[in-house]
Amino acid sequence: MGDQVSEQTTNRLSLYLRFLNELDADGVRTVSSKVLAEQFALNAALIRKDLSHFGDLGVRGVGYVVKDLRQRLRQILGLDRRLNVAIIGAGNLGFALADYPGFRQEGFRIVALFDSLPGKVGRRSRSGVLIHDSRELERVARREGITIAVIAVPAASAQMVVNTVVEAGIKAVLNFSPGALRVPPGVKLKSVDLTVSLESLSFYLASSGDGARM
Amino acid sequence: MGDQVSEQTTNRLSLYLRFLNELDADGVRTVSSKVLAEQFALNAALIRKDLSHFGDLGVRGVGYVVKDLRQRLRQILGLDRRLNVAIIGAGNLGFALADYPGFRQEGFRIVALFDSLPGKVGRRSRSGVLIHDSRELERVARREGITIAVIAVPAASAQMVVNTVVEAGIKAVLNFSPGALRVPPGVKLKSVDLTVSLESLSFYLASSGDGARM
Repeated sequence: MGDQVSEQTTNRLSLYLRFLNELDADGVRTVSSKVLAEQFALNAALIRKDLSHFGDLGVRGVGYVVKDLRQRLRQILGLDRRLNVAIIGAGNLGFALADYPGFRQEGFRIVALFDSLPGKVGRRSRSGVLIHDSRELERVARREGITIAVIAVPAASAQMVVNTVVEAGIKAVLNFSPGALRVPPGVKLKSVDLTVSLESLSFYLASSGDGARM
Repeated sequence: MGDQVSEQTTNRLSLYLRFLNELDADGVRTVSSKVLAEQFALNAALIRKDLSHFGDLGVRGVGYVVKDLRQRLRQILGLDRRLNVAIIGAGNLGFALADYPGFRQEGFRIVALFDSLPGKVGRRSRSGVLIHDSRELERVARREGITIAVIAVPAASAQMVVNTVVEAGIKAVLNFSPGALRVPPGVKLKSVDLTVSLESLSFYLASSGDGARM
């Protein structure tokens, strides 16, 4: 299943889920693909196609039952299980991610921070995540059942850190470090390039004739 | 121009640019759409289409001249001007973004941090960015020519902060706070939802039969 569904589709499923969470919290019971389309400025046919990958989730004339679709999306995205996450690098970014409230809302548990600086080991993030010695990664990962590692170290040490993550048996890596990283087959690497987001704003300013005052 | 080019296209242009920077640094002189396609696991026709939006950039039988295409992409993305950026919120995330090396490489200058806590005002990030009082936003924005604001405050105060950013005349906003924000027409808002990235890894683990150990 995973190979036939593009990353763009799964990214959209995440956004639908976020909106369904809000609707459910507001007591809304059903939603049409038209309403979803308006919310995300997408084509209603695209949304129906995204959801049809996973069986017939809609009800003719009604649209989607919010609670059912929400539960199904959580299953599809693998969020109906607890996912234990480690963050490698206890700098500003590592601490920010350890305490990011959005992760916990969707069932991710940040169970450990890792750093190689002795002065940091043994301390905790504001939300209470303990900083372990990086050399303990494999042992802690097995004990805590860590399945996702987040890389929040400087670019110069990122590839070395990813190698130790892979050796520790972790199969999914979220990378915030600039620059390309290599992982072996069977390990999924996703990189968040923060500069891409800023450049899309720069493009907007350039093409709208507004922008930088030199 | 801006309205006819999708955000997905501009995001791809950013990725092409990053790769062209590497090629240029390595002394590579020309590149084909086929090589670009392999690098990004995209269709060569899609890449040619992306680039054809902006005039005829390729040379038949040669592909693209790296230096020329790089310079043209920088122009298209509005990176041939200095773009001054403010970060609102001097917490862990704000500091991490202020010192993120990838921004400076592409010509973004983080010129100010803002926070409302008196104990933080007057201090500096590791790279030397000064923290101003949030009430000074409009004055500092005009003086420093700030055109992009990055929102790195807790969700509860994010909408209020965005409102003051808009009042200060800033037309482009990059939001890291979870939850939906509203901006008036003429202001471009781009939100980075860090949870979406983690969920795409969760989907991979779920669909590959690996994943959480309960």
